[in-house]
Amino acid sequence: PDWELVTLDGEEQLQRVFKLKNFAEAQAFTNKVGDLAEAEGHHPAILLEFGKVTVRWWTHKIGGLHKNDFIMAARTDQLFNG
Amino acid sequence: PDWELVTLDGEEQLQRVFKLKNFAEAQAFTNKVGDLAEAEGHHPAILLEFGKVTVRWWTHKIGGLHKNDFIMAARTDQLFNG
Repeated sequence: PDWELVTLDGEEQLQRVFKLKNFAEAQAFTNKVGDLAEAEGHHPAILLEFGKVTVRWWTHKIGGLHKNDFIMAARTDQLFNG
Repeated sequence: PDWELVTLDGEEQLQRVFKLKNFAEAQAFTNKVGDLAEAEGHHPAILLEFGKVTVRWWTHKIGGLHKNDFIMAARTDQLFNG
């Protein structure tokens, strides 16, 4: 599965589910994405579960998607693959 | 706000929203709860957002709530307050 377009609270968002081995690895990936978010000053929603992390990128200020969200999605993939 | 009972995918869960100052503090609290979960071998769903962490405890194996979930909820409160 790759990124999909979802609408939450009337705002379009980019969402992807990442599968990890267990909770600890999911937590570690959550931190990687969180650290990237802090570094860039752009913050996603990250749902941490056992063996699974769901990341949603969008730009609340404009109520939807900005070019930057697509860039952050691609960088999230890089964190996952790298 | 305190813990509320929610039903997701047909399973009753205990959910509480914790307000934090910013993303970094929300991430730090996510890790505290995650570390507790790993230590206890019982894993919640944790939604990390800017200034906000939503924690859900339930026992997937029984499709709902076990006494242990209420204990973990209380311990999550202790992490937040302590």
